[in-house]
Amino acid sequence: MSNPRYTPLAQSLPATVPFVGPETQERARGAGFAARLGANENIFGPSPQAIAAMQAVAGDVWMYGDPENHDLRQALAAHHGIAAQNIMVGEGIDGLLGYLVRLLISPGDCVVTSLGAYPTFNYHVSGFGGVIHTVPYVEDHEDPASLFAKAAEVGAKIVYLANPDNPMGSCHRGADIVAAMDQLPEGCLLLLDEAYVECAPEGTAAPVAADDPRLIRMRTFSKAYGMAGARIGYALAAPELISAFNKVRNHFGVSRIAQAGALAALRDQQWLEHVLAQITTARKRITDIASANGLTALPTATNFVALDCGSDGAFAKRVLEALIAQGIFVRMPFAAPQNRCIRISCGPQDDLDTFAAALPAALATARGTA
Amino acid sequence: MSNPRYTPLAQSLPATVPFVGPETQERARGAGFAARLGANENIFGPSPQAIAAMQAVAGDVWMYGDPENHDLRQALAAHHGIAAQNIMVGEGIDGLLGYLVRLLISPGDCVVTSLGAYPTFNYHVSGFGGVIHTVPYVEDHEDPASLFAKAAEVGAKIVYLANPDNPMGSCHRGADIVAAMDQLPEGCLLLLDEAYVECAPEGTAAPVAADDPRLIRMRTFSKAYGMAGARIGYALAAPELISAFNKVRNHFGVSRIAQAGALAALRDQQWLEHVLAQITTARKRITDIASANGLTALPTATNFVALDCGSDGAFAKRVLEALIAQGIFVRMPFAAPQNRCIRISCGPQDDLDTFAAALPAALATARGTA
Repeated sequence: MSNPRYTPLAQSLPATVPFVGPETQERARGAGFAARLGANENIFGPSPQAIAAMQAVAGDVWMYGDPENHDLRQALAAHHGIAAQNIMVGEGIDGLLGYLVRLLISPGDCVVTSLGAYPTFNYHVSGFGGVIHTVPYVEDHEDPASLFAKAAEVGAKIVYLANPDNPMGSCHRGADIVAAMDQLPEGCLLLLDEAYVECAPEGTAAPVAADDPRLIRMRTFSKAYGMAGARIGYALAAPELISAFNKVRNHFGVSRIAQAGALAALRDQQWLEHVLAQITTARKRITDIASANGLTALPTATNFVALDCGSDGAFAKRVLEALIAQGIFVRMPFAAPQNRCIRISCGPQDDLDTFAAALPAALATARGTA
Repeated sequence: MSNPRYTPLAQSLPATVPFVGPETQERARGAGFAARLGANENIFGPSPQAIAAMQAVAGDVWMYGDPENHDLRQALAAHHGIAAQNIMVGEGIDGLLGYLVRLLISPGDCVVTSLGAYPTFNYHVSGFGGVIHTVPYVEDHEDPASLFAKAAEVGAKIVYLANPDNPMGSCHRGADIVAAMDQLPEGCLLLLDEAYVECAPEGTAAPVAADDPRLIRMRTFSKAYGMAGARIGYALAAPELISAFNKVRNHFGVSRIAQAGALAALRDQQWLEHVLAQITTARKRITDIASANGLTALPTATNFVALDCGSDGAFAKRVLEALIAQGIFVRMPFAAPQNRCIRISCGPQDDLDTFAAALPAALATARGTA
């Protein structure tokens, strides 16, 4: 009996599972985590109105969602002061990234990103046979100038820039990115991942014309809006590029419950403000915990804080593992020199108390002084 | 300013939106439908326990879903008496079809399906540059013998067979399909879409070994389980093929709410039985309505009934349009001779009463005797 005949590309892809969730770690350790601070989830949760909206439509889930995502797109258009034809709603930024890469990247096509930036973009690029070129972070920031210069050098079709950045939490002024776009080479699309932009200072979102064909921005309900598990996000771009998604996307792919929840979450901007205030408080608390333990918290424009453990990646990894052993789910950057840090998601007082209680012993273990 | 550089394949794909939802039609007509009988949704709805489970976790939606879908896969493994490694959970059959096609189909690779069968499979094949060969239905059944013969003739990598079939509602005994697989050519994967199998007579599901590398079966919570809007389904196949999905799938793509709902729905087999009884009642009622109007209801193994309007596709289309004009959402097969039919989803008494009230006028309009 014969096996399926995979494409050469599929055969070339690694068989290892690239993304390990906290539940997998919990099953491996045989116990749940006491604090879930590793995935930049918004522990403060979604708007109560979003929860109520999702609960209210749970019984309607026998119906497919509207494949046009019409109501949400209209609300987003009003919210952003643009047209609905500039907006594509999809299954989270991860889903939209996959569609975008599929539209632009054939085997051998080049992209540029920062070394150690969001791995799911790279996963999709590799998955479609693209070639990934990287440039280093500059002082813990993704660097538009070096990204765009590399894009010109390699003839990249896409350059990926997260603003604010994950995993470091740094950001640029949106106006600076727009100014830097003068150096974006012809025929290279800027993919601006603004997943965390609601958490960032005023002026971080790129002030670009909605119809500018040179870039696509991605936003999500997974972070500030607290709906990671609902799988809903959106892209902002020129109508031609937005329409192109219709060629490949899963038209009925967005959950009806997510559609209702996102619409309610968007309408409850007061809750968003409330969450952002809690994030501000949590950032300060994480910074204080770091200081009390001799670590340095990096400035952050996101719902997480990178803590510089003051040594190399091997040391930070020991800290991370010692925290996990104590039931604290955290993650860390993949690449040097950012991997001198561990990354702590903002959360309520209780979760951060748990982290604060575990950190001294974790550091002692990592230092071999336990 | 330059435009994005799409792949040649993306450029070649049609820009038209291939799937129109009922909400789009409602917006176009400026009024909601009085009965939603067109998308083979399960109007009887999901298990109350599934609804309660989804409502209970709505507040937990700040967490991503478990990327392994561990708990649901374990429960499905127990339910089917197979191993979890034989099961891949994904974003509905539509999502899983996309991943499977991506794994196997490069531009120019061939697939075989039936003329007028499920269009989303074709959408994915075209979207990855594959070549679609079709064979006709035989007496309103997809025909394994001619599908497999055509697959041998063209060297197909995938042959698609829905059992029960959509849009005709016909089915084969699973054992007959297994016997016919002797003629499945080497290196051709049988993709057996069992989306409606819970509605079918005992013996319809294919009695195959879980590790048989020649086929993959797809199941869903969208139909008998009534959760189309939650976007969750699963594939059953040999472990190697199941693992291959990990190379390309969106690992965090399944909604946390859908995971909880599906698990509860699976556990409530009593509700499933209850729904199946309601479907049986509705089939009979639709058949009676057809008879009373001089139409022929085809035998069905699904939650819908194909009604032979007794003439050609143009006539059936007029009936369909006249029903839609009266606020009844229905659909019809795409290809001749199946398009002599309209397709009516099973639903509660009220919905079918609405349909029954509208049908005589729709037929009169179609006949020009109104």
